[in-house]
Amino acid sequence: MGAVKGVIKRINPRAEIVDITHELEPFDVLSAAFSLKTSSIYFPEGTVHLAVVDPGVGSERQPLLVKTEDFFFVGPDNGIFSFVYDSQRITNIVNLSNREHFLADVSGTFHARDVFAPVAAYVTLGVDINEFGTPARECFRLLIPEPKVTGNIVTGEVVHIDGFGNLITNIGAELFYKKSVASVSMGRRRIGRMSRSYFDIHPGPAGALIGSSGFLEIAMNQENARRILKARVGTRVKVFFS
Amino acid sequence: MGAVKGVIKRINPRAEIVDITHELEPFDVLSAAFSLKTSSIYFPEGTVHLAVVDPGVGSERQPLLVKTEDFFFVGPDNGIFSFVYDSQRITNIVNLSNREHFLADVSGTFHARDVFAPVAAYVTLGVDINEFGTPARECFRLLIPEPKVTGNIVTGEVVHIDGFGNLITNIGAELFYKKSVASVSMGRRRIGRMSRSYFDIHPGPAGALIGSSGFLEIAMNQENARRILKARVGTRVKVFFS
Amino acid sequence: MGAVKGVIKRINPRAEIVDITHELEPFDVLSAAFSLKTSSIYFPEGTVHLAVVDPGVGSERQPLLVKTEDFFFVGPDNGIFSFVYDSQRITNIVNLSNREHFLADVSGTFHARDVFAPVAAYVTLGVDINEFGTPARECFRLLIPEPKVTGNIVTGEVVHIDGFGNLITNIGAELFYKKSVASVSMGRRRIGRMSRSYFDIHPGPAGALIGSSGFLEIAMNQENARRILKARVGTRVKVFFS
Repeated sequence: MGAVKGVIKRINPRAEIVDITHELEPFDVLSAAFSLKTSSIYFPEGTVHLAVVDPGVGSERQPLLVKTEDFFFVGPDNGIFSFVYDSQRITNIVNLSNREHFLADVSGTFHARDVFAPVAAYVTLGVDINEFGTPARECFRLLIPEPKVTGNIVTGEVVHIDGFGNLITNIGAELFYKKSVASVSMGRRRIGRMSRSYFDIHPGPAGALIGSSGFLEIAMNQENARRILKARVGTRVKVFFS
Repeated sequence: MGAVKGVIKRINPRAEIVDITHELEPFDVLSAAFSLKTSSIYFPEGTVHLAVVDPGVGSERQPLLVKTEDFFFVGPDNGIFSFVYDSQRITNIVNLSNREHFLADVSGTFHARDVFAPVAAYVTLGVDINEFGTPARECFRLLIPEPKVTGNIVTGEVVHIDGFGNLITNIGAELFYKKSVASVSMGRRRIGRMSRSYFDIHPGPAGALIGSSGFLEIAMNQENARRILKARVGTRVKVFFS
Repeated sequence: MGAVKGVIKRINPRAEIVDITHELEPFDVLSAAFSLKTSSIYFPEGTVHLAVVDPGVGSERQPLLVKTEDFFFVGPDNGIFSFVYDSQRITNIVNLSNREHFLADVSGTFHARDVFAPVAAYVTLGVDINEFGTPARECFRLLIPEPKVTGNIVTGEVVHIDGFGNLITNIGAELFYKKSVASVSMGRRRIGRMSRSYFDIHPGPAGALIGSSGFLEIAMNQENARRILKARVGTRVKVFFS
């Protein structure tokens, strides 16, 4: 991480670097994509978001520069930009093929330092995005399963687990609109009533709430729900409306 | 964490954000309060300290702005400001009730982003503290047990465990003034002699020293005392003076 | 960590503080030295590198200021500057003996806050390096074992393990120059073929590659090689050339 920051500061000493999170598990592209979505939109217009994650399974991913109406994103085409599509209008995607803006020696193993960091730094200096390579049509996108709605039952699953062990599902707040929840279950486990916030959950059993990201979450009062409920990404969650 | 920083930078792009620690356990308000005390006083006058911790047990905590002679503190009224009282004179406490300085949509679960971050940012812009809400009398304070002094024996307990596993007690340096220590014990365990610093402790047995926070600590030479001694917050520590 | 930053900002509010890593194990001076080497050289000329690590075994280490042609380094003389020698020409070493540039009360336990941080801050203000103490001849250097070359076999060992569990050896890239690798082994375990990068390693067995630091590494496809191979610093690695 230090080297990445050094490269940026050497190219643009006035660039200000803000750490987003140090809590992502290696190789967890989905969590990284989720973090990028939920944090990027709060930054000032023109912010360059540098996504440093490990390469995807099996093959080398093309390095990309993605421009939306408000922001720039630099990183590998491994799915990390999946949710940028949900929240922002993408205006340009550029394959980073122009080695002129890379470090002189590009190692096989450290693209964050040798490719992404210098490109991000040159973007902050105002270099035109077309200077960095050739236009691309779209990014690789992770498929987030859509929840299924069958009568009064919505069936979704855990798609993300945050640093506190809260289980974030793919069941969006809009599905609760003007409805009354009878019960929530996860796997074979009955989950407590819907709560308004984390501290509204009773100590002991797990509760459900609409989290700050706009999705149903399963959480516990000051406990790690992932560990205690032995849940994981993919664990099924059902909401029964009355 | 990223979203919190984004909110601040969007309101005041010139605000400089400094991370204090990433090593607090979730829900450990005491450790957070301790960290806030031991780090805040070293910052330049006028610094705004933003305390992002999880909500306290059982009920929603009022968001607060606390002003001391030198600093501003923003965070929940869950005890995190307990030790600010020890080291600084508090001049104002404000209940953050004026939603004008919150994010437009306040979620139930993410006050750090929606309430504390924007208020902290507006404070750095010089907004008058009375603009943020109504004056309050005092903060919720964690009760740190006082050590008991009985003749030549001081009985205290572990009140904080740092990231290296050093056990910090509630026995202050002033209790050692002009006295000579005969022995120190923790639970039923005899602790080695008083040391002048961590590297003065012999490898193997635990030692005792006055730590950088001004309290008696139990520590081991390059080992994690918490893990090896199976100590926890509340474990009893005795000092026998000769 | 917060207090260290506070001290710096109070002395030089314009100093910009960049975190390098939060992932070093306590007391692991070798990893810290390695991180310092691989990150420091990417920063702009004149950068002050502040190395905050725990004290070395057994005795108090002299606080030092080390100047190279491009940078300043401040920290304890415990071996952390070992690899600065490899990559940069050291022009001055100063024993930090002038207490004038320390905090007023120097605790026995927290030199990073009381000695290193204020000295680093005063260096950024342009204070002459000779003001901080008396010249020294050299730093304490960790002995990194040299690999042994016997005919077509190079025998080295793991000298560093990074945050992803990749095992970095002391076998430098130059030993592979114009040679063809027949096989690589670690302990009794046969390692897969040489790969060009991490994502070139097949899922399952471990692979070997020349890492971004210029040394042979043993790694696995999206797995933690340290944990799965039960390797540690000192584990023997052999390369057989054909």
